[in-house]
Amino acid sequence: MSELDLAIRGGTIVTASDMYKGDIGIFDGRIVAISDEITGARQEVDASGLWVMPGGIDSHVHIAQDSGPGIVMADDFASATASAAAGGNSTVMSFALQKRGQSLRQSVEDYRKLAEGECFVDTSFHLIISDPTPAVLGQELPALVKDGYTSFKVFMTYDDLVLNDRELLAVFDVARREKALVMVHCEGYDTIRFLAERLEQEGKVAPYYHAVSRPEVVEREAAHRAISHAQLVDVPIMIVHVSGAEAMEQVRWAQRRGLKVYAETCPQYITLTAEDLDGLGMEGAKYVCSPPPRDAESQKAIWEGLSQGVFQTFSSDHCPFRYDSPQGKLNPKARSSFRWVPNGIPGVETRLPILFSEGVSKGRITPQTFVALSATNHARMYGLYPKKGSIGIGFDADICLWDPKRKETLRQEILHHGSDYTPWEGFEVTGWPVATFVRGKIVYRDGEVLGDRGHGQILARGISEYVGA
Amino acid sequence: MSELDLAIRGGTIVTASDMYKGDIGIFDGRIVAISDEITGARQEVDASGLWVMPGGIDSHVHIAQDSGPGIVMADDFASATASAAAGGNSTVMSFALQKRGQSLRQSVEDYRKLAEGECFVDTSFHLIISDPTPAVLGQELPALVKDGYTSFKVFMTYDDLVLNDRELLAVFDVARREKALVMVHCEGYDTIRFLAERLEQEGKVAPYYHAVSRPEVVEREAAHRAISHAQLVDVPIMIVHVSGAEAMEQVRWAQRRGLKVYAETCPQYITLTAEDLDGLGMEGAKYVCSPPPRDAESQKAIWEGLSQGVFQTFSSDHCPFRYDSPQGKLNPKARSSFRWVPNGIPGVETRLPILFSEGVSKGRITPQTFVALSATNHARMYGLYPKKGSIGIGFDADICLWDPKRKETLRQEILHHGSDYTPWEGFEVTGWPVATFVRGKIVYRDGEVLGDRGHGQILARGISEYVGA
Amino acid sequence: MSELDLAIRGGTIVTASDMYKGDIGIFDGRIVAISDEITGARQEVDASGLWVMPGGIDSHVHIAQDSGPGIVMADDFASATASAAAGGNSTVMSFALQKRGQSLRQSVEDYRKLAEGECFVDTSFHLIISDPTPAVLGQELPALVKDGYTSFKVFMTYDDLVLNDRELLAVFDVARREKALVMVHCEGYDTIRFLAERLEQEGKVAPYYHAVSRPEVVEREAAHRAISHAQLVDVPIMIVHVSGAEAMEQVRWAQRRGLKVYAETCPQYITLTAEDLDGLGMEGAKYVCSPPPRDAESQKAIWEGLSQGVFQTFSSDHCPFRYDSPQGKLNPKARSSFRWVPNGIPGVETRLPILFSEGVSKGRITPQTFVALSATNHARMYGLYPKKGSIGIGFDADICLWDPKRKETLRQEILHHGSDYTPWEGFEVTGWPVATFVRGKIVYRDGEVLGDRGHGQILARGISEYVGA
Amino acid sequence: MSELDLAIRGGTIVTASDMYKGDIGIFDGRIVAISDEITGARQEVDASGLWVMPGGIDSHVHIAQDSGPGIVMADDFASATASAAAGGNSTVMSFALQKRGQSLRQSVEDYRKLAEGECFVDTSFHLIISDPTPAVLGQELPALVKDGYTSFKVFMTYDDLVLNDRELLAVFDVARREKALVMVHCEGYDTIRFLAERLEQEGKVAPYYHAVSRPEVVEREAAHRAISHAQLVDVPIMIVHVSGAEAMEQVRWAQRRGLKVYAETCPQYITLTAEDLDGLGMEGAKYVCSPPPRDAESQKAIWEGLSQGVFQTFSSDHCPFRYDSPQGKLNPKARSSFRWVPNGIPGVETRLPILFSEGVSKGRITPQTFVALSATNHARMYGLYPKKGSIGIGFDADICLWDPKRKETLRQEILHHGSDYTPWEGFEVTGWPVATFVRGKIVYRDGEVLGDRGHGQILARGISEYVGA
Repeated sequence: MSELDLAIRGGTIVTASDMYKGDIGIFDGRIVAISDEITGARQEVDASGLWVMPGGIDSHVHIAQDSGPGIVMADDFASATASAAAGGNSTVMSFALQKRGQSLRQSVEDYRKLAEGECFVDTSFHLIISDPTPAVLGQELPALVKDGYTSFKVFMTYDDLVLNDRELLAVFDVARREKALVMVHCEGYDTIRFLAERLEQEGKVAPYYHAVSRPEVVEREAAHRAISHAQLVDVPIMIVHVSGAEAMEQVRWAQRRGLKVYAETCPQYITLTAEDLDGLGMEGAKYVCSPPPRDAESQKAIWEGLSQGVFQTFSSDHCPFRYDSPQGKLNPKARSSFRWVPNGIPGVETRLPILFSEGVSKGRITPQTFVALSATNHARMYGLYPKKGSIGIGFDADICLWDPKRKETLRQEILHHGSDYTPWEGFEVTGWPVATFVRGKIVYRDGEVLGDRGHGQILARGISEYVGA
Repeated sequence: MSELDLAIRGGTIVTASDMYKGDIGIFDGRIVAISDEITGARQEVDASGLWVMPGGIDSHVHIAQDSGPGIVMADDFASATASAAAGGNSTVMSFALQKRGQSLRQSVEDYRKLAEGECFVDTSFHLIISDPTPAVLGQELPALVKDGYTSFKVFMTYDDLVLNDRELLAVFDVARREKALVMVHCEGYDTIRFLAERLEQEGKVAPYYHAVSRPEVVEREAAHRAISHAQLVDVPIMIVHVSGAEAMEQVRWAQRRGLKVYAETCPQYITLTAEDLDGLGMEGAKYVCSPPPRDAESQKAIWEGLSQGVFQTFSSDHCPFRYDSPQGKLNPKARSSFRWVPNGIPGVETRLPILFSEGVSKGRITPQTFVALSATNHARMYGLYPKKGSIGIGFDADICLWDPKRKETLRQEILHHGSDYTPWEGFEVTGWPVATFVRGKIVYRDGEVLGDRGHGQILARGISEYVGA
Repeated sequence: MSELDLAIRGGTIVTASDMYKGDIGIFDGRIVAISDEITGARQEVDASGLWVMPGGIDSHVHIAQDSGPGIVMADDFASATASAAAGGNSTVMSFALQKRGQSLRQSVEDYRKLAEGECFVDTSFHLIISDPTPAVLGQELPALVKDGYTSFKVFMTYDDLVLNDRELLAVFDVARREKALVMVHCEGYDTIRFLAERLEQEGKVAPYYHAVSRPEVVEREAAHRAISHAQLVDVPIMIVHVSGAEAMEQVRWAQRRGLKVYAETCPQYITLTAEDLDGLGMEGAKYVCSPPPRDAESQKAIWEGLSQGVFQTFSSDHCPFRYDSPQGKLNPKARSSFRWVPNGIPGVETRLPILFSEGVSKGRITPQTFVALSATNHARMYGLYPKKGSIGIGFDADICLWDPKRKETLRQEILHHGSDYTPWEGFEVTGWPVATFVRGKIVYRDGEVLGDRGHGQILARGISEYVGA
Repeated sequence: MSELDLAIRGGTIVTASDMYKGDIGIFDGRIVAISDEITGARQEVDASGLWVMPGGIDSHVHIAQDSGPGIVMADDFASATASAAAGGNSTVMSFALQKRGQSLRQSVEDYRKLAEGECFVDTSFHLIISDPTPAVLGQELPALVKDGYTSFKVFMTYDDLVLNDRELLAVFDVARREKALVMVHCEGYDTIRFLAERLEQEGKVAPYYHAVSRPEVVEREAAHRAISHAQLVDVPIMIVHVSGAEAMEQVRWAQRRGLKVYAETCPQYITLTAEDLDGLGMEGAKYVCSPPPRDAESQKAIWEGLSQGVFQTFSSDHCPFRYDSPQGKLNPKARSSFRWVPNGIPGVETRLPILFSEGVSKGRITPQTFVALSATNHARMYGLYPKKGSIGIGFDADICLWDPKRKETLRQEILHHGSDYTPWEGFEVTGWPVATFVRGKIVYRDGEVLGDRGHGQILARGISEYVGA
């Protein structure tokens, strides 16, 4: 064994299946030893009393994404990845959004440029397909999959992104051939338009009506439709940001039939409710995201899904806008209708503390399940395993040191994202990330983001383990 | 009691709940007496050994309907209603199809003209809405409902008829306000196009591929979508011609949740299979209808639904084309692809014998359930009750005399429809209609259609009992 | 037609499927004519504004039944059948209880003697089998079925009645061979004992703990067990007095699998709750019955079952004791523990008003469903059809005249049973029986029981229509 | 780091969540290092090309158990644990069976004596409770749990073992208080007797009728009953040897409701069918076990349960008898009826190859799931974790080296158990154990059991992780 670069000593190692005390030895950015005692490393970190977990992987993060005229996302790659690091994450997956009429390859290049040399943690891109032309389907996608862009995202709503069923089927069909994994945003476009216009006609334009315009049945219908299309084409799919029992039951129903239907949920669906949108004045805009948060009953259902294996991943759907900004939640048209409030909330930094506190500290899930939901399954789902996602020999030394006892209150002033607020202001948690390592290098410690922003790499990915051979 | 016009004597009366021996006295077209012995009528019919049932009501019959360029339906109102009478029916409900760009009122008038003075049995029109313009939604439909056109039909597929989700919601919304009942043809347009084009590209163009292009999942997805829309708008719907377990399970799921989702099935789904489409040459075209027949497992499921109350009505979906005709199944383009084979099969005359024989004679359903599925529920579903649909005082004297023991072999030569074939050629049944009365007047006896074709009236209908107050 | 004995004129006839205006002509105790106008009968009753329904059939009524040492039922056959008549019923089915060691035939004879010449309405006996000896199984039961005792009842609890699984299977097996219908009281004996003894050890002895000792899971487990045994033996069963969602879901699950599992529920399960047992002092004893009433959620579930066809019959489980009596609810040992409070409540007189008011008047079920649940299905279930159970030619003239608009407040002072209280004291209803006819003879009118007590016959019954050929 | 006793080098480490290449260093019987390269150990084992997995834990193995008069199990602790080692296992859990009238403590001591100094692998005892006297419930069980006997087993069938519901509830109640885990053999005693006697009366006595006498419904009913009791008492349970869809659906139903109901299945239920019992002469007796194997459809269902997380453990239910022996399958009475054929088949040695080959090699489960089902979950379920069950620092060096490519044919001549046959004679597998280590000591290599039989320890166990704090 060569001399080690770094030893993390005295902590409790947690993987998706195990939990035991051990030292970790790191060389050249990778884990090379796990042992009862590692001495002689060039550098030592004392992890006594801490849990040593795989660095969080957040597979659903929107960064610097085109958000329509006059609207600007609150995070660039530097701030987003700094925020991710401070939240215990060593990898985030962002999106390259194809505009209609645009070459998909071009959009990938554009987003790569925004990210290159800017990231504190590793990153990788899913492909948002908004214009599945024959060229996109026939040439670009197969080539991009070969280049390591092995996951697509499609939308069943949003004016600029929605695909009709015919287009969905075409994309699913390419995914099947290329073994890519399709992520689906399940909400029905026409239904939302119908409801939104009716609400507007009735003068119901406050942010709260965003939630009313997208009830659970809208999400459920789209989930059923996506599942049916996937069944028809015989392709696995991942239904992202499932918000409540209705859509989740569709997923469970599909899984029981043996269909490869996977699902993700997010912090907002276990902690927020539609009532949060009903704030004074425009305050509710801070909680506008899609699907909207539901109610206490839905939160209970989502927890069932988390503990019973319906969900494979727990992501943030980080999609940050500033609240008090003409380019954000309070843009000039937002007061005229909820329809103009940008959809999305910041969350990459708070995801892990929320899941740990509500899940592990409150006894709803085991520490191992926490690791599976926050890191390991993401790596396996999106083709980063076994490079990332666990603590074992040969894995990238992506590590989060976690204090399971530390109590903290979530608040804007301690966060590192580009938003000017957090939806969890005042939310109390037990369990907190105290350091984050990316390929053996510390990028965050005790409230401070460290290191140079170029350390994060842009990762090519392999085929999802959930898609199979 | 005035002197009776007619007495039907010595038969066994069957209603949707009861079965007992009795004579029936008729005056001025209505039932005025049921008794152990009725004497002194101007005319007597001996029903000894026969069952005396409410005349069949077939609420799903296409007659003389516009079927696209060069294609002509095989039945006009005279032949269709003659065929209906010969099949034991005293009422059929047909469709007034709005062409795109056309006034709905105008389409109604056009179809009425075709029917007036031509019918052997009573008839009534559902409204097919293909172009839900603001004028249609805002003025025409409310007015037409008031005039007794209390049921709409919408399609989720077919180039000339398909409504998108937005339009479906708009129609559902009008139905809710006007207390009309919406019938929905549930198959997904985009999905069928996707599959059909792929099949054509692969050279799979024989009639059999019609079935392959419309698998059960296509029907199920559309059923789920329609149910979701109905739930959202809070309106009852009727899902017509459910073909198998997949769509039926959606209906059952909705019913268990307390949603007012009703369903119909047809003879083809308990007797035919997709294999029937796989005939020599173009023979399979004789069985091309939508949804297509499925398989033995589906037939079993449909029987479960019939006996367990999932289905309220059993209709024919009579949609007759000639086989050996350039205006029918063998039109010039039909050989080039299944897509050009007109969809539909004749069945108004064979519906009751098939349900009776497969259901009652084989012990799967009771005689009372037969009456409910073939007459009473249709009347209650579509606003003809208590004028029609049962045997009781004050009901129209619409009566079918049925020989429960008579064995017959279905075959083209004994039928009265305009088609040149029957899909059930050679099918053996036990139980046969021997006479049909419409408002006290005999219109069919022993193989022969009687009376003048003007006897049948065009009925205005009230609000469905299933829609409620 | 001979001269009629009686005409009931001007009412609205309701059957399990239909509702129409008509006069009814009766001769020699049977319905011989239904007509728009019947004149010239020896006697006429004006039913204007009233509904003319089949007389109620209450297939679950305990009368003068042996209830253990020192306890006496509050009704003999005279008072029970008077009470039934006043509640709109023309037939009740009571029980002949075999004591252990006793010949079943002897027990039948004993109960017949109690009933003969005492009844105001017709009655018939189910056989309670508490000692299935080889003689009972091999000789007595087959002979008794032939004599018209075509239904058995077995208990899965109660010290003196409980059968073990082996015995249940033996009785089921005889039922299968003889085509008898087995009614099953589903609550688990051992489980109740376990819970009751624990409660007593904890000093929890008030009447309220009766409900705690018999939670829904106890009923559900027994229901599942009975269903499994029935499936194994391949015999239909009727699960009586289902009290809530848990047991009902087992029934629904069985029905969906095509098993012939039928179910009954009772007024207490749609109107009372366990909280009613928690009265001051011993007041709760008035509501002690088994299974106990549950909660609001269960009531909702039971209504779902009633409207969706899970239940075939709605009975009273009339089992009357006096409250303020040393032979009734306040017997010497009752204060020492809920275990000594006699199980059962009076209800034969209030069953129909409760179901009508809560069901029909409140729009939860149709008038036709009311008739099915309260009369027709009982006749078909227990082999009295088509002698009884509907209004049609040849049926016994068992008729109830019902005022659908009349408001009444249930209270002890207006009832005719032998109990000194009603569990529904103060309960307000809309809809009330104003007259009851048994085989053409009026036995109740406007609060007064009429006629001689010998008019009621003891009925032999045929094979259940639900058991089949 | 002290000098290592042993290094296992060059293999692919597999845990319940991960799979990566690494060397393992062992000292004093425990794993002290996992590294990319470990040198300098006193002994090295080359694991190139092999998988290095936690040694199998078989938590359901019957050894030297009292089997009634004249019947002798084919394995003592020496042969059983030798066979276990040869099958890749490093721990087995056996049973201490209380005879009726016997002190439970005494039975434990008796079985311990049989095991002490005889075992090749580690072992531990579950307590079979056949006589839950107040002393057993009140004193013995609490004391034994404290001594590390943290799991009980109860039977719902077998003359000498069956507990009635009252007794089951009492045992469950103790388990709840003491945090012990109850394993339940779910088959209904009375039902089996009913069926078996009927079969015997019909002369159906061949071994095949063993399966007929215990159909799935018998197992399902008992499973539902056990679940209900557990729900009532609020205690987790483990339903062992689930054989098919019926019982499994009860488990799934309970799990979805959030009940702590766990389940085990076995090799016989994914590879054998009832048809195997239908051999020539008495050959079928070789496959007689309870529950019996079912059919192909059931096997498919069990695979669903294995891949969808319904089952936590996969055990052998090793229960070995000799076939050709008067003390085994061919005992004097066995030919007179299947009822006298000893229940049980040998399987401890073939469990892992069968699961690996049918599961991993055929692509039905991942290697990680294999480890979870065969080792890790057993350790967590029965209180041996984190001493055993995974590969991590501090774990006992219980390791199995596995050749994932090796093809082998199962046959009696290569096995080490005491039986004279294997039910899987001729069964072909891909994947084979090539060495087994118990606490760092090799006990099996390449077909040969090594080491002294005293190496295996008798383990006290902690509280199940599935029971919780």
